Amino acid sequence: MPVTLNTADADFEARFTDMLSAKREDSVDVNDAVAGIISDIRKGGDQVLCDLTARFDRLVLTPEQLQISAEEIAREVATVSPEDRAALELAAARIRAYHERQLPEDASWTDDTGATLGWRWTAVSAAGLYVPGGQAAYPSSVLMNAIPARVAGVQRLVVCVPTPEGVLNPLVLLAAQLSGVDEIYRIGGAQAIAAMAYGTETIVPVDKITGPGNAYVAAAKRQVFGRVGIDMIAGPSEVLVIAQGEQDPDWLALDLLAQAEHDADAQSILITTDPALADAVSAAVERILPTLPRAEIAAASWRDYGTVIVVRDLQEAAALSNRIAPEHLELCVDDPEALAQHCIHAGAIFLGAHTPEAVGDYVSGPNHVLPTARSARFSSGLSVMDFLKRTTMARLTPGALAAIGPAAMRLAASEGLQAHGASVEARLARLNERHDE
Amino acid sequence: MPVTLNTADADFEARFTDMLSAKREDSVDVNDAVAGIISDIRKGGDQVLCDLTARFDRLVLTPEQLQISAEEIAREVATVSPEDRAALELAAARIRAYHERQLPEDASWTDDTGATLGWRWTAVSAAGLYVPGGQAAYPSSVLMNAIPARVAGVQRLVVCVPTPEGVLNPLVLLAAQLSGVDEIYRIGGAQAIAAMAYGTETIVPVDKITGPGNAYVAAAKRQVFGRVGIDMIAGPSEVLVIAQGEQDPDWLALDLLAQAEHDADAQSILITTDPALADAVSAAVERILPTLPRAEIAAASWRDYGTVIVVRDLQEAAALSNRIAPEHLELCVDDPEALAQHCIHAGAIFLGAHTPEAVGDYVSGPNHVLPTARSARFSSGLSVMDFLKRTTMARLTPGALAAIGPAAMRLAASEGLQAHGASVEARLARLNERHDE
Repeated sequence: MPVTLNTADADFEARFTDMLSAKREDSVDVNDAVAGIISDIRKGGDQVLCDLTARFDRLVLTPEQLQISAEEIAREVATVSPEDRAALELAAARIRAYHERQLPEDASWTDDTGATLGWRWTAVSAAGLYVPGGQAAYPSSVLMNAIPARVAGVQRLVVCVPTPEGVLNPLVLLAAQLSGVDEIYRIGGAQAIAAMAYGTETIVPVDKITGPGNAYVAAAKRQVFGRVGIDMIAGPSEVLVIAQGEQDPDWLALDLLAQAEHDADAQSILITTDPALADAVSAAVERILPTLPRAEIAAASWRDYGTVIVVRDLQEAAALSNRIAPEHLELCVDDPEALAQHCIHAGAIFLGAHTPEAVGDYVSGPNHVLPTARSARFSSGLSVMDFLKRTTMARLTPGALAAIGPAAMRLAASEGLQAHGASVEARLARLNERHDE
Repeated sequence: MPVTLNTADADFEARFTDMLSAKREDSVDVNDAVAGIISDIRKGGDQVLCDLTARFDRLVLTPEQLQISAEEIAREVATVSPEDRAALELAAARIRAYHERQLPEDASWTDDTGATLGWRWTAVSAAGLYVPGGQAAYPSSVLMNAIPARVAGVQRLVVCVPTPEGVLNPLVLLAAQLSGVDEIYRIGGAQAIAAMAYGTETIVPVDKITGPGNAYVAAAKRQVFGRVGIDMIAGPSEVLVIAQGEQDPDWLALDLLAQAEHDADAQSILITTDPALADAVSAAVERILPTLPRAEIAAASWRDYGTVIVVRDLQEAAALSNRIAPEHLELCVDDPEALAQHCIHAGAIFLGAHTPEAVGDYVSGPNHVLPTARSARFSSGLSVMDFLKRTTMARLTPGALAAIGPAAMRLAASEGLQAHGASVEARLARLNERHDE
């Protein structure tokens, strides 16, 4: 049974602050090991890649076998049941439709000086998506990473997924196929990240790497950052449910448990104005927990990080929510839109009792790769923008340069950068000559 | 005199690849020193901040004196000449006008299932801007970092600028004032970054830190990343000038030197279809170089990294430009708009001979904080977006849940996440009961 806090209690602030600052990840330092793997791949290429795959995934490959062939993909995908395929196709279609709306527009305008200004968006040329192996190989994550890249216009989309003992995951392969992935390699860990960042004889390097992974993958992404772009380094998942009034305790309990079953480090928090609902939900969690196949994981998460907070009113709830800056925020209240206006830091908001967070993980359309560990204060979930970059554009006419050039010369002088000023002055001098003619 | 490459030469590819992979930064490893400073600030707060400021900036302060007072700011700002003030005001107005167009729009729509989807943009609550001290204290950088934050709607904007021996920079203070900065602290280095990220007794922590700095500042930004958001870690500056036809060699030489005078590690590259122009520009650079106050720095940059490349045609020029992915790209050609269409990786493009890169550093309007070291392949310059975050929104009706919920249950089952499926199933069961009534 987790702690139940009450904002009316004298020690609430202290206990809430403790909860906020509680570290949920024991960050094992694998940086040196990862640095070694990266430099080995840079030196040894395919051969090192095959050696490490034999060692870590117990799978012996030749360089030619690193890529999963079209035949293998077709064979595996054929084993997917029509029901699973239909569900993946629905999810893919809805994720695509949502992300297509994120495509930003180029801009160009001419100001009163005659200067034409604007910007242009272009896609990253090649992106690599890492997909964890084994239990954490989620087909839904393939869709959530690959579809935004495709929508952005990425020309070459690569997937790396470890296949311990060579076992392929048909749903992951189908998700990649539905997302329009071009190449799939059966490699994982830091060696896969290094191969995508620096390239090998058979793997052409990419410009951006996204996707979840273990501590080694996360460390490798940090280390190759700069050489390539990366997405956020995601921490354990979190949900905050704010509930008020007539709510089914079982629904809320299941939403809390859906988060808890992800990972023993996951965190589920309930904030409610109703002490009776707080007790009812806690009781429902205890009742349902033992029935889950992943009961052990969910129980550890709920025991160590589960939190129930009773507040005086929804204003208090919103204020606490903004301090938590939750990855997922579920608003099971009478007027969720009104409350959402006051919840300014959250990765994703689920409005109303019929929008369980789980639909957001799969089929509602928004991305499920979201900022964790309070980073929603300053960052956003994965989107089409992560696979685009903006180039600013400027074209000055002689008149525009005459209008604003002198100010540039003045500022260049004040910063002691004479060539900066001279590059403007030389052009203005020519214009003045023309006037004098 | 730098190397002149010609794409017609047999060894061009090898020499161009060498140029591309040449490391321009000797990255001193200051990570341990920085980690020590950060943990000292977290433990000791203001007192450590004062001690380190006394040590590194030879400036003895009490915690009360860490912040530069309104009186001091007013006194310093009053010393700025009307000409300098007018130039800064023009720059600020143009930068603000450009960045106001970057404000993205919220979106909300209802799809055919009855699901209401969309997203909402909100500003980072508090941002901290680092401004280097001494010679590298550029007022223009204050404008380029602070104005986008203000335009985004950041409520609290903090500046940290070291003031060795207590000497204040009036133009930096005026730039901060014109940008609407709320608090200015006379601290620098890793200790300033740590103070902004973790807070001290007098400095309330921020959510996002941007701005240039030396190796210690860069390392500190990397280490606090996650606790707060950061902008890119900028490397040495670069310009690529593509020239064709009737161009004034002096103009192009000055544009190359304007980049070279920044830093001995800066890189200036000229690509032209005209061998005679290549020689004329190289000669002009040699002639003008000695006349510059910063001749020593510019000469080192031009000698070590300056490059002139003769190409057969503009198609070749664009292809090379895309491999360089330059921070600044100047197109001094007959039809710059047409060429720009083929240059897909660049931080900023300057079109036509009357748009010297130097105007972009100060007054044209676009941001001068741009991706360096080929990172324009996957990243963009600083913008209003860096101070905003997107929250995705979803509201399902019972009908929408009935339409897409079963697919979510199917996928949850395939991923072995039973509580995910059950959270949807429980709601659907209730809906079916209603139907049965």
